[in-house]
Amino acid sequence: MLDTWSDDRIVAHALAFESALAEAQAKHGVIAREIARSITDCCATSRIDPAAWADEAALAGTLAIPLVRFIRNAVPDAAKPSVHRGATSQDVADSVMMMQVREGARLITRDASRVMTALSSKAREHAATPTMGRTLLQDALPIALGLRIAQWHAGIAQARDMFADAVETHAVLQLGGPVGTRAAQGGNGAAIADDMAARLGLRAAPPWHARRNGPASIAASLAMLIGAVGKMARDVALMSQNAIGEAREPAVEGRGGSSAMAHKRNPTGCQTALSAAGRAPGLAATMLGGLSAELERGLGGWQAEAPVMAELFLLAAGALSAMADVAEGLEIDCSALAGFVPEGPVDLGESAKLIEALLTPGKEN
Amino acid sequence: MLDTWSDDRIVAHALAFESALAEAQAKHGVIAREIARSITDCCATSRIDPAAWADEAALAGTLAIPLVRFIRNAVPDAAKPSVHRGATSQDVADSVMMMQVREGARLITRDASRVMTALSSKAREHAATPTMGRTLLQDALPIALGLRIAQWHAGIAQARDMFADAVETHAVLQLGGPVGTRAAQGGNGAAIADDMAARLGLRAAPPWHARRNGPASIAASLAMLIGAVGKMARDVALMSQNAIGEAREPAVEGRGGSSAMAHKRNPTGCQTALSAAGRAPGLAATMLGGLSAELERGLGGWQAEAPVMAELFLLAAGALSAMADVAEGLEIDCSALAGFVPEGPVDLGESAKLIEALLTPGKEN
Amino acid sequence: MLDTWSDDRIVAHALAFESALAEAQAKHGVIAREIARSITDCCATSRIDPAAWADEAALAGTLAIPLVRFIRNAVPDAAKPSVHRGATSQDVADSVMMMQVREGARLITRDASRVMTALSSKAREHAATPTMGRTLLQDALPIALGLRIAQWHAGIAQARDMFADAVETHAVLQLGGPVGTRAAQGGNGAAIADDMAARLGLRAAPPWHARRNGPASIAASLAMLIGAVGKMARDVALMSQNAIGEAREPAVEGRGGSSAMAHKRNPTGCQTALSAAGRAPGLAATMLGGLSAELERGLGGWQAEAPVMAELFLLAAGALSAMADVAEGLEIDCSALAGFVPEGPVDLGESAKLIEALLTPGKEN
Amino acid sequence: MLDTWSDDRIVAHALAFESALAEAQAKHGVIAREIARSITDCCATSRIDPAAWADEAALAGTLAIPLVRFIRNAVPDAAKPSVHRGATSQDVADSVMMMQVREGARLITRDASRVMTALSSKAREHAATPTMGRTLLQDALPIALGLRIAQWHAGIAQARDMFADAVETHAVLQLGGPVGTRAAQGGNGAAIADDMAARLGLRAAPPWHARRNGPASIAASLAMLIGAVGKMARDVALMSQNAIGEAREPAVEGRGGSSAMAHKRNPTGCQTALSAAGRAPGLAATMLGGLSAELERGLGGWQAEAPVMAELFLLAAGALSAMADVAEGLEIDCSALAGFVPEGPVDLGESAKLIEALLTPGKEN
Repeated sequence: MLDTWSDDRIVAHALAFESALAEAQAKHGVIAREIARSITDCCATSRIDPAAWADEAALAGTLAIPLVRFIRNAVPDAAKPSVHRGATSQDVADSVMMMQVREGARLITRDASRVMTALSSKAREHAATPTMGRTLLQDALPIALGLRIAQWHAGIAQARDMFADAVETHAVLQLGGPVGTRAAQGGNGAAIADDMAARLGLRAAPPWHARRNGPASIAASLAMLIGAVGKMARDVALMSQNAIGEAREPAVEGRGGSSAMAHKRNPTGCQTALSAAGRAPGLAATMLGGLSAELERGLGGWQAEAPVMAELFLLAAGALSAMADVAEGLEIDCSALAGFVPEGPVDLGESAKLIEALLTPGKEN
Repeated sequence: MLDTWSDDRIVAHALAFESALAEAQAKHGVIAREIARSITDCCATSRIDPAAWADEAALAGTLAIPLVRFIRNAVPDAAKPSVHRGATSQDVADSVMMMQVREGARLITRDASRVMTALSSKAREHAATPTMGRTLLQDALPIALGLRIAQWHAGIAQARDMFADAVETHAVLQLGGPVGTRAAQGGNGAAIADDMAARLGLRAAPPWHARRNGPASIAASLAMLIGAVGKMARDVALMSQNAIGEAREPAVEGRGGSSAMAHKRNPTGCQTALSAAGRAPGLAATMLGGLSAELERGLGGWQAEAPVMAELFLLAAGALSAMADVAEGLEIDCSALAGFVPEGPVDLGESAKLIEALLTPGKEN
Repeated sequence: MLDTWSDDRIVAHALAFESALAEAQAKHGVIAREIARSITDCCATSRIDPAAWADEAALAGTLAIPLVRFIRNAVPDAAKPSVHRGATSQDVADSVMMMQVREGARLITRDASRVMTALSSKAREHAATPTMGRTLLQDALPIALGLRIAQWHAGIAQARDMFADAVETHAVLQLGGPVGTRAAQGGNGAAIADDMAARLGLRAAPPWHARRNGPASIAASLAMLIGAVGKMARDVALMSQNAIGEAREPAVEGRGGSSAMAHKRNPTGCQTALSAAGRAPGLAATMLGGLSAELERGLGGWQAEAPVMAELFLLAAGALSAMADVAEGLEIDCSALAGFVPEGPVDLGESAKLIEALLTPGKEN
Repeated sequence: MLDTWSDDRIVAHALAFESALAEAQAKHGVIAREIARSITDCCATSRIDPAAWADEAALAGTLAIPLVRFIRNAVPDAAKPSVHRGATSQDVADSVMMMQVREGARLITRDASRVMTALSSKAREHAATPTMGRTLLQDALPIALGLRIAQWHAGIAQARDMFADAVETHAVLQLGGPVGTRAAQGGNGAAIADDMAARLGLRAAPPWHARRNGPASIAASLAMLIGAVGKMARDVALMSQNAIGEAREPAVEGRGGSSAMAHKRNPTGCQTALSAAGRAPGLAATMLGGLSAELERGLGGWQAEAPVMAELFLLAAGALSAMADVAEGLEIDCSALAGFVPEGPVDLGESAKLIEALLTPGKEN
């Protein structure tokens, strides 16, 4: 996930954007084919130093200015005016961010599936294992352990679906030009956008420079996913308290130790997830705050988005990966579980049915 | 909207919940029909004083305890044990909140439609009206005024659709009993929940006491809607600056004056919307923070949700209603618009096509 | 605390503001003494209906407009132009808010003292009571129970001091007039402000219409106080888990029961405090977000402040009052505490010294 | 500022912590002098690869574990048990963070002074320059331009003072050992902490592992400072609109251009500051949310703090440095200012007096 949000990747995506733009414009007669070829060749072969580029971009206030200058310097004179034609800095920046989002989403989805597969199996395994249900941190009445686990699964599944929908809907190409009118595309803006989107693995959509529903939706759904993983972590950590001892994170060589107390086994995976869950709401709030952008391109709001988006993806990936390990290796102590359940016949209500309802996509109630 | 979230309404919904529970249980043989009837009669006819009830609920830590006591006191002895059977406080509280959400959503949708209808018409009216496009608060290049307006429309439409989806998906009945197992429903929990949901205008779903994706999703989508309305307000306020003078809120008798400067016409509708947009992200963050609830019922997290949800609905309703007035009566000064556009032929790019794409549901790019 | 933030109180403070303005202006020769007297008489005797006023204020976009109209209608013609002279709506609104802040701060301080007194006494009582120290929710090594309690005390004390400083520094009069220049005060603006401040129980300061450090500081310090109380609540709730049983909230008739499980004793005080602690950060963030106000008076930002401030005071008061009861009546089970401490000699380190350092104001380390 | 929060710096500070601990313990007879010397020699000379260390720390869940292992491997056998004696991971992590805070605070203070010096001079220069005061984005009445600038100054000055206080009060040593009792310090914990604090440039204080007022206070005050700088940026950006043209950011070679519109001069400094101001509240909220930490060391909360603190310092440094350039080089167009002020005599009220009050530390009203 660090790679996905690295400067290297930004450079690569930005070059891909300029290349796709030239090809699409050539296809639709906006620039000549050989001009386009010289641009795509340049984008394919040239090496930009990400660090030097980042410095220039910081000075310029936009990453596109040094990028365009670099390509213009590298192509023949005849091609120079056709580089970045009809595009604006934010077209590059937003499209790059959405390419990163799509790439990052694959990792998120994969790790969410790992967690869910493990939880699904454990929930069914414990569909009839009694454990003490606890409300407001007080012992209440027995439930099936599998029901608690199925609830974790359902929370993560709902959030993952919402995230996947948000990515599918909102991770779209940005192509609008300086003020979002698609001037200078020869009246073929929609076709060029379709073509570019296909090349870049995005969907096409009208320009959204100052309509930031997309980033905000993706961010909110990531925060939701992180929170749902945090819920599982909270429960595992509570079940792992020594006085409870119903569950433990799997032992991993080198993990969860203490610099001062060799006997301790700390819930380090839970810690990672809960730390992420503590940070996600504030980051999502920042993205929601960016919706009220000024006129055709906001001042300050959208420039805050890319680092916040990166942070959310990194936190989600870290939380999911940590809790995938926990889900797969969770140690459950059935005798500890039993110790909290009163002797005699135990009424688990409709735990078993509910487990199936919670684990079955599309099944309700 | 104040009515929707009033104590009166909470009492009415809570009585409806207990009534529907009794009826559904009678239908499925969990309690006797005449017992159910005495409970529903009591719920239909009795008067609870919301203020006294709120005090008792505050002391008890839950609104259900005084409610159940009240009903038990009012029904015949034989019916007393069947009141609230198999239910828990949070079943009532969450179901009531979701009834309020459904009711509030109708008002939100109605006012969002008012805004969108007005914007849609104005966007088409100005599909060829040149205005200066502004980026980073600097004059950039001309656009059609209708394109700016169509972007407002699209932002609000996307957010409204997301909100409507969230309500449809997540405004569901809560029925799980003390620990979410649906014990004491005679094995008919799912059928009873289906029946209750139908009576209460909700959908049925497995219990979600400690899986708070629903409230968080609804809250995030409301914050999105408020932000999209705030974007329109930001732009109108900027266009209404005296040095720009391209637009003005409609004159409303008694609104927008100044206690000190009689000549001023303040953008009061925009103020309302921007104030809401400033508050919504923090409220949404609070709801996202509640996802990591403890075990079968969280301590502190979910109890924070109802007032925050109410606040978000009130802010959204206020912002939408204020901006509906603004959208319908927006005064546009075409000569002021023209004054910022350079003389000579003006290239509005593909503004007209984009306006149609932005206004047409389901149409992309 | 509800009274402090009620509409009644706002009306009373607003009338006091207009009255003090007239008196101070008369003293400094800006208006005639008999004119001032007719205004102060009117403010002292007249009855404004808060509900009707709130409606008018909502329409006007500012509470001062109906207020000023009301007073002007009630005074002789000669006095009309002198009502609200040189003042602006925000002068009233901000000064009223700060009068409410001072009033609310007294309640906060009183309840914080209750908590601290009780904790201080309990910390010393248990300066040598061994209990298991827990880190990352895992048993670690023994500490004195008094050390944990002294840490609660120190957190609350630090936050309360910070809050008291913020109130003392920032709960100041607002008097600047329409654009903050104190025009129309006859060159005596500073003296008039001093005089008014003394009458209203505030400090005087230069106008701060668009410099919102004050509200943001007070809000942040309140959120800090709520968080510190939440820390105590988190710990008490964890110690109250049945499997731990080291502490319990005091039994209060009618509190902490369950609508479904008569045997439960829920940590209702902790719930109140933790619920507040979940909401405070988002509210503080909203206030911090209002700092970047536009020019001489912001649009939307400061209008969001008063309700958010009220919310924070109500949450703080609720949390402190609930935890004052808990602190005073906390039931500690020493044999449960001992049960988690290994047999044999126990090393409590420097717990006793640290308790004194933590409880002693000004003492460090 | 990037250096201050780099992995290199963390390693250096962590080694300094272990070194100071050994020296202080030797001085107070807890470990032998030659043992201490071998530890300090090791810390002074050895080279840890920050990247490899970061990987190990991520696995272990704490940075101290690989650090201590590294030092133990490097010292003679007799010294091994004395490395990190009586300390815990969080002692290192928190102390390192506070060393970074002190270091970062010097840069913040320096850049804040640059801004304030420039603003102070410009405010006095324009103490009698009339400009149109604007409220709710509407022209209101004239003020002295210097008054607006002095308000920027006062907001930044108040926030900087609050930040400096927070750093002085809260950037303290952490030394408590595994559960915060200072066991294993031979009863000399306070003296050892004093000694270490002096060596590390910190103040000493009782342990605060789970009492997070300090980080929260520093973060809130940084968010306040960023917001105050954002206020200046908001105003400069509004004054720089083409239709207003009263001010412009200084021209900097390579900055503020547009990839599409060569004629534009974008307010890039303001953009940086406003972007920071959009992110700071959510980050501060995260820190405030960490206050309710569990028992003797929280799970997830405090682990979230260091990266959030780093982010806030980087944003503050970026915003201040950008706006220092703007403040020093701000281009003011007096004829544009005059163009908005009505002809004839202008009443600037008490602008001049207020400017002095706002610029003079300690002077009130």
